[in-house]
Amino acid sequence: STMDKDALVDYEYPDLDPLPSKIETETIPPCDPTADDMLYHICITAISVSLTSVHFSLTQHYTDVTKHLLICSLSPVNFLDHTQHKGLAVAVFGVLLCKLWGLLISTNPLPFTTDSTNKQNWVILGVFYYPALYYPLLACGTLHNKVGYVLGSLLSWTHFGVLVWQKIDCPKTPLIHKHYSLFSSLPQIACLAFLSFQYPLLLFKGFKGAERTNATEDLSSSYYRDYVKTILYEKMSSKVSTSSTDKPKLPQRVTDAVRSYIYTPEEAFRFPLKLAISCVVSFITLYQMGLVLISAVVPTMQKARFGVDEDIANVLAGFQIILSPDRKEVVRIVVYYMWCVEVCYISAMTLSCLVNLVLLMRSMVLHRSNLKGLYRGDIYNVYNCQRTIRASRPALVCWMGYTSFTAAHICIGMIIQTLVFFLCLMVAVFLIIIPILHRQNLILFQIVLSMWPFWLMILLAVVLQHITARFCFIKKTAGTRDLTNRGNLFLLTYLLFPVNVLIGVLLAIWRMIITALFNIVHMGRMDIGLLNRNVEAFDPAYRCYAHYLKIEVSQSHPVMKAFCGILLQSLGQESKAAQKSRDAEEGIQLVQQEKKLHKVSSAKRARMHWQLLYTLVNNPSLVGTRKHFQLQTADNFLNGSLNRTSKQGSKKEAIPKEAEAAAASN
Amino acid sequence: STMDKDALVDYEYPDLDPLPSKIETETIPPCDPTADDMLYHICITAISVSLTSVHFSLTQHYTDVTKHLLICSLSPVNFLDHTQHKGLAVAVFGVLLCKLWGLLISTNPLPFTTDSTNKQNWVILGVFYYPALYYPLLACGTLHNKVGYVLGSLLSWTHFGVLVWQKIDCPKTPLIHKHYSLFSSLPQIACLAFLSFQYPLLLFKGFKGAERTNATEDLSSSYYRDYVKTILYEKMSSKVSTSSTDKPKLPQRVTDAVRSYIYTPEEAFRFPLKLAISCVVSFITLYQMGLVLISAVVPTMQKARFGVDEDIANVLAGFQIILSPDRKEVVRIVVYYMWCVEVCYISAMTLSCLVNLVLLMRSMVLHRSNLKGLYRGDIYNVYNCQRTIRASRPALVCWMGYTSFTAAHICIGMIIQTLVFFLCLMVAVFLIIIPILHRQNLILFQIVLSMWPFWLMILLAVVLQHITARFCFIKKTAGTRDLTNRGNLFLLTYLLFPVNVLIGVLLAIWRMIITALFNIVHMGRMDIGLLNRNVEAFDPAYRCYAHYLKIEVSQSHPVMKAFCGILLQSLGQESKAAQKSRDAEEGIQLVQQEKKLHKVSSAKRARMHWQLLYTLVNNPSLVGTRKHFQLQTADNFLNGSLNRTSKQGSKKEAIPKEAEAAAASN
Repeated sequence: STMDKDALVDYEYPDLDPLPSKIETETIPPCDPTADDMLYHICITAISVSLTSVHFSLTQHYTDVTKHLLICSLSPVNFLDHTQHKGLAVAVFGVLLCKLWGLLISTNPLPFTTDSTNKQNWVILGVFYYPALYYPLLACGTLHNKVGYVLGSLLSWTHFGVLVWQKIDCPKTPLIHKHYSLFSSLPQIACLAFLSFQYPLLLFKGFKGAERTNATEDLSSSYYRDYVKTILYEKMSSKVSTSSTDKPKLPQRVTDAVRSYIYTPEEAFRFPLKLAISCVVSFITLYQMGLVLISAVVPTMQKARFGVDEDIANVLAGFQIILSPDRKEVVRIVVYYMWCVEVCYISAMTLSCLVNLVLLMRSMVLHRSNLKGLYRGDIYNVYNCQRTIRASRPALVCWMGYTSFTAAHICIGMIIQTLVFFLCLMVAVFLIIIPILHRQNLILFQIVLSMWPFWLMILLAVVLQHITARFCFIKKTAGTRDLTNRGNLFLLTYLLFPVNVLIGVLLAIWRMIITALFNIVHMGRMDIGLLNRNVEAFDPAYRCYAHYLKIEVSQSHPVMKAFCGILLQSLGQESKAAQKSRDAEEGIQLVQQEKKLHKVSSAKRARMHWQLLYTLVNNPSLVGTRKHFQLQTADNFLNGSLNRTSKQGSKKEAIPKEAEAAAASN
Repeated sequence: STMDKDALVDYEYPDLDPLPSKIETETIPPCDPTADDMLYHICITAISVSLTSVHFSLTQHYTDVTKHLLICSLSPVNFLDHTQHKGLAVAVFGVLLCKLWGLLISTNPLPFTTDSTNKQNWVILGVFYYPALYYPLLACGTLHNKVGYVLGSLLSWTHFGVLVWQKIDCPKTPLIHKHYSLFSSLPQIACLAFLSFQYPLLLFKGFKGAERTNATEDLSSSYYRDYVKTILYEKMSSKVSTSSTDKPKLPQRVTDAVRSYIYTPEEAFRFPLKLAISCVVSFITLYQMGLVLISAVVPTMQKARFGVDEDIANVLAGFQIILSPDRKEVVRIVVYYMWCVEVCYISAMTLSCLVNLVLLMRSMVLHRSNLKGLYRGDIYNVYNCQRTIRASRPALVCWMGYTSFTAAHICIGMIIQTLVFFLCLMVAVFLIIIPILHRQNLILFQIVLSMWPFWLMILLAVVLQHITARFCFIKKTAGTRDLTNRGNLFLLTYLLFPVNVLIGVLLAIWRMIITALFNIVHMGRMDIGLLNRNVEAFDPAYRCYAHYLKIEVSQSHPVMKAFCGILLQSLGQESKAAQKSRDAEEGIQLVQQEKKLHKVSSAKRARMHWQLLYTLVNNPSLVGTRKHFQLQTADNFLNGSLNRTSKQGSKKEAIPKEAEAAAASN
């Protein structure tokens, strides 16, 4: 509450008390929280290490049991797959980001040491220590069993409890600003609170038995089938609506433009996990960066403002600047100007935050439209050139770094935006607003006004050209427009050549301003290139995004997943009908299935051959993947698309046959 | 020669004489040239006015004689048409640009007055006065008769003679730099010399009788037919060569990139006149801007450098800067640093000039490929969206201003480039080169070196990601690449998240540098957009260029012109065969022709109908232009494309019939 009052007092126009009493600099006593950070970290590290080893042993056990198609999704390190609970991964990445932030800002990067001379080395250590520390929080969720959830709950409660306890113990720290540390840890607290709530919830669900199907949740979830249904439905409805090819009118276009900046969730589209993490990470970065920008600069400015006394008149006189003969008046003026600078800075920072928030939403809209475009093969529209959508080394490296790069770009973008907006606002305030308010020093207006003949000439030349172009030189005949009066057109062009050079100078300045502003505003966005369309690939951020999309689309195409899901489902049904026993080893089951298949009727085999042929004709890209199996029967055509979810080479041949049989019997 | 020696002395390393004797500031006496500028301008204005009136009367006479299809190309104001001699228009625009430059730079914009307080108003007057003054120089060439050439020769000799005389009389002026005025008028002298040479040449050609065919030169010239032949030939040869679709190798790609910056003239392509003017105007602007940038700054810097004496030590000591206890040593150091600044500035300016020259060539290559692309209807590739290529109001306004805007953009671009390059070079010299040379103040290197663990970590993280991506996570099977080891991939992504944020910061800084540098370097080019490809239309310069191309292509498509030329030629042959009399009024001839046409055989008429149908089917856009003639016979289908060269509404119907008849009989 004292803060609120402070803030209120600070932002009242400082007209009333021209000589504020100097605020005493509040000394913050060094505070040792009851929950000692070093002890806590040593304990939690030990717990984490033991948990990780328990995990791996559990996994080992698990993999023995579930050696089947979807083995990969059960690995404890498989947390970025679509099969996983999105919230857990997002929250852990959020916690990690906050920790990294603290690592870079604070003077003591690690809790084990107070050696601030070797900060760099401690930061490097911390950069690898914190991911390892929080790893169990993430891994517990991927086990998909009650033990994992219990461990996760305990661990997240510990982290959450200790952090909250520490913040209650020591809400004020001498770092940057007395409340900076508290505010900075808010996202971390929120993420840990989410985890502390989510793990028990998952455990509760597990007790109710809803967990059992979770292992194959991804492929058997209705999302992919819903997606396919939606695109099929959309195509039918769009065929009806595209008959009207009228140009949209202005209000319609404005509404569309505004709407393209507002993200509205769609039922039939779900963000890939990595993109969801990136969005949350961007948001947290935005918050942290804003906090640093405010708390690092504004208190200093305020201190300087409150510290102004009558000595300032002497200092200014030393530089031959005499604002007023009255020394109190000088102080008043100086304080007023400093207050203006402060307001400009805070406005610039707020503007930058708002701009980045809006652009974050816009990015999400664009991500969705890009992904949907790539899903339906519209590569040229997304990339502006023809590319192969497949995994490659640079694409994979970009995929790995994408989330981090987003955060870094938002940081740098916000710093530059705040700087530029601050300068622009300063110019606006000190050259335009204050002169207007005080009717003094109207230098800019005087310059502009004294040039009125020039502006008039420019205006007249522009209007003349537009009017003559419209009414003298363009002739509408039979629905087409053509030039007329060419002689006069050339004469006018020649006579206005020098004036147009002057207009061109204004245009060039306008170009410079608009391109600089556009690039500065969009600096934090990786999903658009800031260079000319022919050299877009040289923009490192956009190149990274383009590569990232490649991997994302090649690995998680919803239609492919829906197809695989249906295949697996029918496989399950068929095997159920054939064997009636569900708890047998799947390997044995598959071998038996394979044996059964040899007895399949020749009619069915012929039908399968025809379906294979049809599939290959419609998907020529699959032919390449068949070369590998030239010596085997032609039935293995599904290998190409399915072996990405299969790890076991020895069973490669059996499964696709199963799958194809299932497909054929559908 | 004294200048050369001066320059040599200036740029020797000022180590040898640490205390150069102060150069006496050369006082330039006010110089009144024998050919008084005011008197000359009054005379030449009077001559110009009388010549213009003579012109218009001559034209009046001429149009009576040649009321036929190509009337437009004979109008005295039709100097921007393709029919005209390119060199004349280019030279006159060059002269005009130099005059505009002088107008803006000099303190006395107009020769009639020495009133420098109202400079702005005189500039505005001058902006309209000079185009009118040089108009006769341009108009004389468009008359296409001996009188015009004689007048043109006399006028250009006068302008040239007086200018050269004045410059010999007064080579030195106090403006900016003693030789600035002389160097600045060199392009003007060159342009006038070209005109003085070209007019007599044209007159000489006229005497030899080569001039008679000049009136219809445009359509009957072999250029358009050659162009059509070339594209037909190219298509055949390209069909053969496109069979090899291999990706080009690196040396090949580098060679291609370099070649795309070197303009090599092609036989079968001629620039539109407006574009040729723009190129020359750009080049002159480059020269003038470079001259101003050098002569306005460098002499001042030199004066300051030679003015350094031992007082500087006291001044610096006042700012607490003590470079050396020895006062002579201080002077030496200060002079040395100032010399470095000078070298940086001159290098920046030279670099900017070279960059703009290279980009000017690149622009020409791009103009050609854009024009050729649009000629063959490849609109999407040029504009990145589908547009209608036809005249419109904004397009026409942009067309009028294009040449001027080019010049203005080069100006602003050069100023910004010089500034930015200067700052970059200063940073490089004072933070990198000088510290290395003197092994002192290696601050930057010390900072970078002390961060070696950080750099090592970044490097290792990047290398690790690339190597694992290549060898662990990507599996090549049967010609396709796919992900493998997904669990470890996710684990690595998670663990490297904080490191990647740091890498992302470097990437973001690199992005900022590269986008800023690209936009600054390409500031002077209008033919590429500096914004993201989706908002390219908001870049005013690129928008203007796109509109300009529209008009250029819609009005001077070489294939259309070749077609019209062939039509006219066959018309000429037919009429020759029909009448044998060549000197009759063409109007009468056309009427007779029309009468003859009524007697045409029904077989021929049927054939014509079929050809009309065929043409319309293949060119659906022509159907729109036919609506206008619904009441007339279907034979007039060529009106749409031909009436742009015809002014006489009364003969509209007759001519296309003729043309079509000719086409049908071919």
